[in-house]
Amino acid sequence: MENKKLYNVAVVGVTGAVGQKMLETLERRDFPVGELRPLASARSAGQQITFKGKAYTVQEATPEAFEGIDFALFSAGGSISEKLAPAAVERGAVVIDNTSAFRMLPEVPLVVPEVNAHMISQHRGIIANPNCSTIQMVVALKPIHDAYGIERIIVSTYQAVSGSGQAAIDELREQTRAVLDGKPAEPKVLPVKSLPKHHQIAFNAIPQIDVFEENGFTKEEMKMVNETRKIFGTDEIQVTPTCVRVPVFFGHSESVFIETKKPFDLAEVRSLLESAPGVTVVDDLPEQAYPMAIDSAGHFDTYVGRIRRDLFHPRGLNMWIVSDNVLKGAALNAVQIAEHMVRSK
Amino acid sequence: MENKKLYNVAVVGVTGAVGQKMLETLERRDFPVGELRPLASARSAGQQITFKGKAYTVQEATPEAFEGIDFALFSAGGSISEKLAPAAVERGAVVIDNTSAFRMLPEVPLVVPEVNAHMISQHRGIIANPNCSTIQMVVALKPIHDAYGIERIIVSTYQAVSGSGQAAIDELREQTRAVLDGKPAEPKVLPVKSLPKHHQIAFNAIPQIDVFEENGFTKEEMKMVNETRKIFGTDEIQVTPTCVRVPVFFGHSESVFIETKKPFDLAEVRSLLESAPGVTVVDDLPEQAYPMAIDSAGHFDTYVGRIRRDLFHPRGLNMWIVSDNVLKGAALNAVQIAEHMVRSK
Repeated sequence: MENKKLYNVAVVGVTGAVGQKMLETLERRDFPVGELRPLASARSAGQQITFKGKAYTVQEATPEAFEGIDFALFSAGGSISEKLAPAAVERGAVVIDNTSAFRMLPEVPLVVPEVNAHMISQHRGIIANPNCSTIQMVVALKPIHDAYGIERIIVSTYQAVSGSGQAAIDELREQTRAVLDGKPAEPKVLPVKSLPKHHQIAFNAIPQIDVFEENGFTKEEMKMVNETRKIFGTDEIQVTPTCVRVPVFFGHSESVFIETKKPFDLAEVRSLLESAPGVTVVDDLPEQAYPMAIDSAGHFDTYVGRIRRDLFHPRGLNMWIVSDNVLKGAALNAVQIAEHMVRSK
Repeated sequence: MENKKLYNVAVVGVTGAVGQKMLETLERRDFPVGELRPLASARSAGQQITFKGKAYTVQEATPEAFEGIDFALFSAGGSISEKLAPAAVERGAVVIDNTSAFRMLPEVPLVVPEVNAHMISQHRGIIANPNCSTIQMVVALKPIHDAYGIERIIVSTYQAVSGSGQAAIDELREQTRAVLDGKPAEPKVLPVKSLPKHHQIAFNAIPQIDVFEENGFTKEEMKMVNETRKIFGTDEIQVTPTCVRVPVFFGHSESVFIETKKPFDLAEVRSLLESAPGVTVVDDLPEQAYPMAIDSAGHFDTYVGRIRRDLFHPRGLNMWIVSDNVLKGAALNAVQIAEHMVRSK
């Protein structure tokens, strides 16, 4: 009988939408958890959470709370990560950080295991989890990039409110009911809670995710540009993103147009996608089968459909990419990184 | 005092979502209606509708029903138009047809007044109203095409359910309430009522509008390709569309990337759009102002925002285009065509 090594795991931001999915994912994938340490802000400390049927009391995330921890999964906002990740690393933990705090630092690997698992070993204590909208796109584009090279990507997203956390999930539910009942929508969370203006998400589409930068793109859009290039390890890929919030609870959808460097064969593209890790092709037009957000919710894979050759550009390819943004887009990807490290230990 | 000439107007499909908006638009724009003749299928005949505060009984749309009619606005499905439009023309009416029945016939002008009003005079009895998703896009692209030429368009749509008629509006409302109440969604209408499979639209995004063609694009997508080229009068514009239904009642949104032929100046693009007929620019990022579907509902204009230069392509331009799909996308455009004819008489 195998004497399985166990790892002590801290989840920071454990009461949030992603934190909860991290627990669920550790459990569903039977990650070898020794001690689980559920951490959150002082405000949430004392709450009860459940892991593998056992109740835990949430502790305050302090530097000392990381003593004896092997893996610290952070998803409590960038400022918490900036403050506490170094403390966790000092105490010997490997930090897998879901915020954008460290993603673009040259010394921090930005990892999607299906794409660039080889970068994990170069970490100096912190490994960054990319942005949700980036992760699912690069999972689907990886086999195509390997085979033909990708020159440019033009992507429009249809992003679920869960990407903005539990408050946005609650807002969509309550606001939708209010609008159906003929009451005022009273937006308070979306598109960006900390900004002065809020817009109705119920029965609407909001073309703003995160704050605007000087160039007219949002921070979310610039993440798709910069993270995609860092993950693929090349500054040659041109990315043109438009990120849009839609009234969907779980599952980001993406309309993706790419131009490859080398000519491709469409049947080969399909077959490459069918055998790509983490990808499920759902593309049977006579059966009206294509990926949809509601079907992706709760699942680990990235779903690809509407795969079609462009009508005009000889190396143009269109597809529709859908994944559960809180799973592959956040919690699952973080757990997969930890799994890779466990396997290579 | 002006002795204003009045015109007898028939609205075919008057009980439908577009038909109702046609009446509303004729009234709001004070179209010089002499007699109004509300027509529909035998099934809907006998229903009451209201126009300018007066009740009318819906009559069955038969060939004889067009006697004495000056303008016949059709929006009752392609087969009704194919059957009855020639009968209306024979009786001296000008048919403005909102279906796709005649749009691509070389002898039928396909008109968006802000773009190609000059084609109206070439009609032989029938003038076609383009597809909703095409109309708002070409209104916004017209000043850019005139100034710089458009080489290609890559567009992803976020289309409201009203584009699929009253049954789809009812479906979204009822299905949303069911899902919030934890009941089954029971889809019956979307994406295409006549096809065997139906998908949940509540809290979902469906990447299918209309049926699929052999090339993997939908009929809706191919309308955007072919109608855009016909309206601009050139086969040189390359269009790559992905059409998606989202849980929005009114207002189509479009994420549009274009490449111009000649280099453009971004400030000039903005100023061209600001002075373009039918266009309102809503683009003030510090104020979080951009077009949104809920704000477009009930309004005549096409709203353009998120106007930004591409990060990589020197002649690449991104924008977000929103309009009420049942008004500018259908009813209003038809009434505007009639207004043009009245003015030039």
